[in-house]
Order: sequence, then C-alpha cells, then structure tokens
Amino acid sequence: MGMELLEQKILSEGKVLSDTVVKVDSFLNHQVDPVLMQKIGEEFAARFSDKKITKVLTLESSGIAPATMTGLTLGVPAVFARKRKSLTLVDHLYTAEVHSFTKNTTNEISVSKDYISKDDTVLILDDFLANGQAVRGLMDIVKQADASLAGVGIIIEKGFQEGGKQLREQDIRIESLATIASLEGGKIDFKNEGATV
Amino acid sequence: MGMELLEQKILSEGKVLSDTVVKVDSFLNHQVDPVLMQKIGEEFAARFSDKKITKVLTLESSGIAPATMTGLTLGVPAVFARKRKSLTLVDHLYTAEVHSFTKNTTNEISVSKDYISKDDTVLILDDFLANGQAVRGLMDIVKQADASLAGVGIIIEKGFQEGGKQLREQDIRIESLATIASLEGGKIDFKNEGATV
Repeated sequence: MGMELLEQKILSEGKVLSDTVVKVDSFLNHQVDPVLMQKIGEEFAARFSDKKITKVLTLESSGIAPATMTGLTLGVPAVFARKRKSLTLVDHLYTAEVHSFTKNTTNEISVSKDYISKDDTVLILDDFLANGQAVRGLMDIVKQADASLAGVGIIIEKGFQEGGKQLREQDIRIESLATIASLEGGKIDFKNEGATV
Repeated sequence: MGMELLEQKILSEGKVLSDTVVKVDSFLNHQVDPVLMQKIGEEFAARFSDKKITKVLTLESSGIAPATMTGLTLGVPAVFARKRKSLTLVDHLYTAEVHSFTKNTTNEISVSKDYISKDDTVLILDDFLANGQAVRGLMDIVKQADASLAGVGIIIEKGFQEGGKQLREQDIRIESLATIASLEGGKIDFKNEGATV
C-alpha cells in the first residue's frame, strides 16, 4: 500500500526525466526533507513491527537519512554500506558487487564485520528499487554475515521494472512506500495508491 | 565547550589509529547511532538558535545523518553536497574542489542551484574538522550562491590541526561538539571538556 504523504510529495516535486526515470532531488536524493524522513522512518518501523529487528542496513548516500530515522524509531543502529570502485583493503569486510544499469558502472560495496553478525535481524532499506541490484548486494552481505533478513523497505519502487517481482518470487518480504506503475508521457501513476498517511 | 555524551562515546568507542587519526565507525562514519545523532541535531540547533537558519548544508556521506537531525530540530531542509572525481555536467551546479590530505585525493563537490539561493542563511555541518578543506569547499558554494553563512557545526574537531584556528581567524563562527587536543600515545585528550550533556 502506498504512503499518501510520500506519493503527494512525489507528484508535486518529482521530475519525470524519461519513461523510466523520476528525479526526487528536492526531498530525498540531494536535498532532504527531515520531517518526511521521520515519517518514513515511523512507517517502516510500523510495517516491520512484527519482526525483532536489530540493525537497519542501507547503502550510502541516499539511504542514510531514512535508515537513521527508521533506526531511531526502532531503537536500533543503522549501518550504511560503502561504495567504492575497487577495494584495496578487504580485511574484515563483507563485500558484494552492485551493478548500476542507469550509470553502467559496477561498484563494490562493503560493510565491516564489526557491525553485522549472525545474531542480527536485519532490515534492508533503500531509496529506489528498480532492477534490484543494490538490494541483492545488501542481501549478499546479510548472508555472508549469517544474519537473518527481516525484509526490505523501499521508498520508491519502480513497479514497471523487474526487481520487486523477482525478489518477491524468492519470498523476500518487500514493503514499498510508493510504487510507480508508470511514468509514461511524463505522468506519474501509482499502484495501490495511498492507504496510509 | 564539549558535549559530554559525545565525548564519552568517543572515549569508549573511538579507535586511535595514529597520533592524528581516530576512527569512529561504530556510531558516526559507518554504523550510525540514531539517538546520538538526534541529540547532536538538538545541540547544533540550540547553539545556533540566535540565527535564522533556512538550510543545513553538509557533504555526503557521514554528514547526512547529523544534518538531517539538525534540520529536523530547526524545521528546515538539509542539503548534501555530492562528491565526484570529475564532473561532466556542471550545468546548474555550484562546484568546488576539496582536497583530502588523508587520502591525497581531490574531489569536486557540487550542489544544485535549485537548493541554495541568495535568500538562504546556511548552517554548514561536517563530521570532522582537521585542515578545513571540506568546510572551505562548502563555504565556497555558499558564497557562489550569494547566501548568508550562519556558521559551521563540527562534530569532532582535531584541535591539533590548523583548520579550526584558520577559520576562526577569518571570523567564521565554529561550534565543535568535541575538540580533541591530542591523540598522542593512543590517548584521547579533549579541550574544554564536557560542559553540555
């Protein structure tokens, strides 16, 4: 179900750049709306309240604000995986590769072994879900740590791309706060619009 | 004056790697302690309460969590400058160069002209202040935007390096929540220890 406040924000401030790209730099990816981030944190915490989450895991940079707010509500730390072109020091790190189709680059992402362990129940968060590459990289890290995966929280899912479908077929629980069905003709259409404020 | 809660955290979890480097990955630079970030946000907001701040400006990635929390308390947006090796598209961007002495790299940082304007009063925030290169880059962007600078909030200042001294000599108001006088012999010594909890 969509989070109405977020959908309204996407409608009023999102810039549709093509049939597959909407830019939300005014409140999420460059400028950050702290009140909206707080409400997003509360919404993720509520949706995963049945799980005993011990860590929120995201990817720098755009995931950090919502992950911190979610951690605040849940009372647990947030961890952000780091992106680098290539890693020189891989000692004491979990690493995974994340390919970006948009930028046609592959980044290595890494998390220190100090911050996720087998005793953790991890909520993965990310700003966008399109092909699912970033989520898969983060899931890989959770697996390497032998930790439990509570599920995946996504702020904006591109419902017309395959990531969400494929992950759900693997029985991964995904909670997307806004799911875009289509951006065609410059118009943003949501799937399962606005059930929660 | 130092923020006691933060100083305690640095003492208990900071890892002194050399006479000039202390790692605080467990609560600030890799794992994030959301409750501490919230208190840091409240502290910065209180220290700059005499200024009518309209934007908090920081640099990805470690500045994002504290900047978002500060923005939340102040009721204003946070903006994070982006780092890149080189910019292909500089249209509609303010850009500045930031040299890192630690990594011996120069990054270009950029902020969209959409998010800082001449009507803004900007609080610059960063996690560390050492040589002051990042702060100077952010100040350069504020100047390009013809905005007002309210001051600079720093979580951890390395008091034994020159950045803070030089910036204060330029009459820049700097509020550092913890100032490290020395890391010699693996021991963390603060300057003006713990006046605020």
